[in-house]
Amino acid sequence: MKEEKITKIKHRMEKWLDNGDWKIYKAIRYTPLSGGKLLRSSIILNIGKDLGIDDEDLLDLCVAVEFFHSGTLIHDDLPAIDDASFRRGKKANHKVFGENIAILAGDGLFFKSFIIISEKYPKLVFDFSKVAYDVLVGEAIDVELEEKQVYTEKDIYEMYRKKTGALFGFSFMAAARLEERRFWRKLKEIGESFGIAFQIYDDIKDIKGEFEKVGKDLGKDINKKTILKLKSIKQAEYEANEIYKKVIDNLVFYGLNRTADFLKSVQNMVKEG
Amino acid sequence: MKEEKITKIKHRMEKWLDNGDWKIYKAIRYTPLSGGKLLRSSIILNIGKDLGIDDEDLLDLCVAVEFFHSGTLIHDDLPAIDDASFRRGKKANHKVFGENIAILAGDGLFFKSFIIISEKYPKLVFDFSKVAYDVLVGEAIDVELEEKQVYTEKDIYEMYRKKTGALFGFSFMAAARLEERRFWRKLKEIGESFGIAFQIYDDIKDIKGEFEKVGKDLGKDINKKTILKLKSIKQAEYEANEIYKKVIDNLVFYGLNRTADFLKSVQNMVKEG
Repeated sequence: MKEEKITKIKHRMEKWLDNGDWKIYKAIRYTPLSGGKLLRSSIILNIGKDLGIDDEDLLDLCVAVEFFHSGTLIHDDLPAIDDASFRRGKKANHKVFGENIAILAGDGLFFKSFIIISEKYPKLVFDFSKVAYDVLVGEAIDVELEEKQVYTEKDIYEMYRKKTGALFGFSFMAAARLEERRFWRKLKEIGESFGIAFQIYDDIKDIKGEFEKVGKDLGKDINKKTILKLKSIKQAEYEANEIYKKVIDNLVFYGLNRTADFLKSVQNMVKEG
Repeated sequence: MKEEKITKIKHRMEKWLDNGDWKIYKAIRYTPLSGGKLLRSSIILNIGKDLGIDDEDLLDLCVAVEFFHSGTLIHDDLPAIDDASFRRGKKANHKVFGENIAILAGDGLFFKSFIIISEKYPKLVFDFSKVAYDVLVGEAIDVELEEKQVYTEKDIYEMYRKKTGALFGFSFMAAARLEERRFWRKLKEIGESFGIAFQIYDDIKDIKGEFEKVGKDLGKDINKKTILKLKSIKQAEYEANEIYKKVIDNLVFYGLNRTADFLKSVQNMVKEG
């Protein structure tokens, strides 16, 4: 996303954040304002453009999705879950504010996202709440699989689809749903597929990457069950590429050319983090 | 609440809970189904009766409020926050399912409550999301005050009003808001006051109580900043009684006699836990 547009979204975030003296307000601000590529926002805005919706009308939706996503990152990074010390090249939320405040800051970002969506996009709030639930179940499956010796490819894909696919599914479909375009359900599926490819690339990156590049702890995921426990990197990357290609083909099929071009242009960024 | 009505609400909870093999589904079921007096549900149903609304039309709302409340209990009980091992006479969620799953189960109950409210009571979802946010800020203020040496009565009351008052405020006003009765805002305030009295009684109970009686860890709250750090038990109890009395008077003023009688009848239970 262009620097200028990132600034616009960060600026809009400010509108929804509180400036109080209590630590919790600072902890809630910290993660969404600390970098990030805002990929989900880019998708929302690009599809919006393809459907003739002005950026201005979707900025609050971007903020809601980014807040929600930040909330999940804070909870994932907690010592009891992924125990990550860094995120987006900065200290993880719990490393700055303590575990107790970080747990509550995650909750706070979730609730802020519901405040925004129920105030500004009430038509989306039911779908959003189901997506939120899926994301958390996906994360919990990820946690549980870590302890498991026996698991299947189906388990891994259920986890990917929920943990990562669900919020991308929402980001792909949101503008179409607002415009009552019939293909919103199809866009949701396309977004879920995109999320699966994204997650596979992310898992490959975690194996290959170094700290400097992705700005979060690597190599901690040794017990994590990813598709790379069942397939070679080469095979997994091939499959992710195929999914990614199909996502773009499907977008073109529905006439969403701008979004298709955008995803083509960022594929390397998605792969490399 | 009558045993029969509790059974009805628990039965309705089942409708919204998932039966899957993943641990997370079991962890999400565990806390809301494990006892509790369902005081918030009683208030919703009593006010509903006063306004001529059938229980049947408010049961899902009760479930949503109880799920949300259970989610906050799970997060409050975590080792990083209150570090409580017991809740409602049973092991705390994190003691049964582990800290990682418990964090996510709390999130899951929050999102379930949003699913229910956005599906069944869309008119309430914006208010509910603001209340959810207030509850978490209140809990975070509680956590922060624990480390503070300097604080005021105003800080304590802000914490009480948010942490405990907000969800009672919602429970008092929900039925009136659904019916578009003008006094719903007034009911919200009455409910917040009730919550403050409730919290003062709870703090007194924590000081006086023994384990068997309230079924959660006591005496851990030694660093907690409650109104009892600033006032004597006698003085605090007197003030809570005055607030409670005013709540009942206000309910009578608005013709909500059934709810007034109900609160009179449970005052000792509220005081003693």
